[in-house]
Amino acid sequence: MPDTTPTGTKGQKTREEILRLALKLACTTGLEGMSIGALATMAGMSKSGLYAHFSSKEALQCAVLDAAKERFVKAVLIPAFQAPRGIPRIEQLCILWTKWEDEKSKAGCSLMAAATDFDDRPGPVHDKVAAMIDEIINTFSRAAEIAVAEGQFSADVDTRQFGYEAWGILLARQQLRRLLKAKDADSLAMQAYTSLIDRSRASG
Amino acid sequence: MPDTTPTGTKGQKTREEILRLALKLACTTGLEGMSIGALATMAGMSKSGLYAHFSSKEALQCAVLDAAKERFVKAVLIPAFQAPRGIPRIEQLCILWTKWEDEKSKAGCSLMAAATDFDDRPGPVHDKVAAMIDEIINTFSRAAEIAVAEGQFSADVDTRQFGYEAWGILLARQQLRRLLKAKDADSLAMQAYTSLIDRSRASG
Repeated sequence: MPDTTPTGTKGQKTREEILRLALKLACTTGLEGMSIGALATMAGMSKSGLYAHFSSKEALQCAVLDAAKERFVKAVLIPAFQAPRGIPRIEQLCILWTKWEDEKSKAGCSLMAAATDFDDRPGPVHDKVAAMIDEIINTFSRAAEIAVAEGQFSADVDTRQFGYEAWGILLARQQLRRLLKAKDADSLAMQAYTSLIDRSRASG
Repeated sequence: MPDTTPTGTKGQKTREEILRLALKLACTTGLEGMSIGALATMAGMSKSGLYAHFSSKEALQCAVLDAAKERFVKAVLIPAFQAPRGIPRIEQLCILWTKWEDEKSKAGCSLMAAATDFDDRPGPVHDKVAAMIDEIINTFSRAAEIAVAEGQFSADVDTRQFGYEAWGILLARQQLRRLLKAKDADSLAMQAYTSLIDRSRASG
């Protein structure tokens, strides 16, 4: 749909471009270590030009996290929720989530870096990243609850525990892949997911 | 044992004090975000005084990682290896490792922060932190190999997979505890470890 306010459109486009670059930069330097000067240079603008779009570094950091979430919802959640309820949906979540980490946008990487950078720094960025991680774990827990409700998972599956273990598998994969450059990071993660799903299945 | 070189002893003590403070600081700011100026102030010395002990920021970062490793070996590995070979030793590893993350020294926290800070920055600090994480995973894998050799674990246990999953459990616990302040972080981790050990046991 064409926007009738060209200035608004232009401003919005610039903002989106800044966020696209910021996601990449945050992946390398961390969200906290991200330099506004370096980002302005990448975007071909002055620091004050950049501050016209984001009132503070903190506001920019929060906007980067929102942009990461938006990409996550589009690339992982919406497609996974096309799959049938229960185990097929959980399997799609695992596959798409793992793929997403590799995606060009680097949004997953920015979130992971922020989770470590801000674990000990109170404030709005901390609260936002904590809420996002909490939501991700809950997404897995709720998917497991649905599998229980559908009779695919055993009624005694601890769905909070399921979400926790699913998240740990992803954290380890991210670290093995990025830090250790381990070639088996994906197969280890997929094997762990298969095992987690299999031991949750209803018997008989 | 008394040291016969007082100057050496004094220099060594100062160095150890700097590293003790650096471990705490790295836990808050990350190893990369650690400011030499802030560290010098904490230690009550000038920046150039601090550089007399560490030739560069990179050398200091590597020394912080070595100090973290030394604390890990003393607090986790040596006591865990007092336990009988096989499952009892693995259980001690899980318990001591989880406890260690909470320890005053903040060494575990520094390592976790470094793992994210340096995953995308080639150089000696990256190589050191990668080697440390690799070694930690291998410690779990080797403990599982021993449990297989002792006939306590099933012969078909994939010990690499075991090490990977054990590490993921710890990563998730660290994040739930520090970032989300989740009260059930420890019970989730211990339940996941119990489940991992139980499903590896030899039948019969």
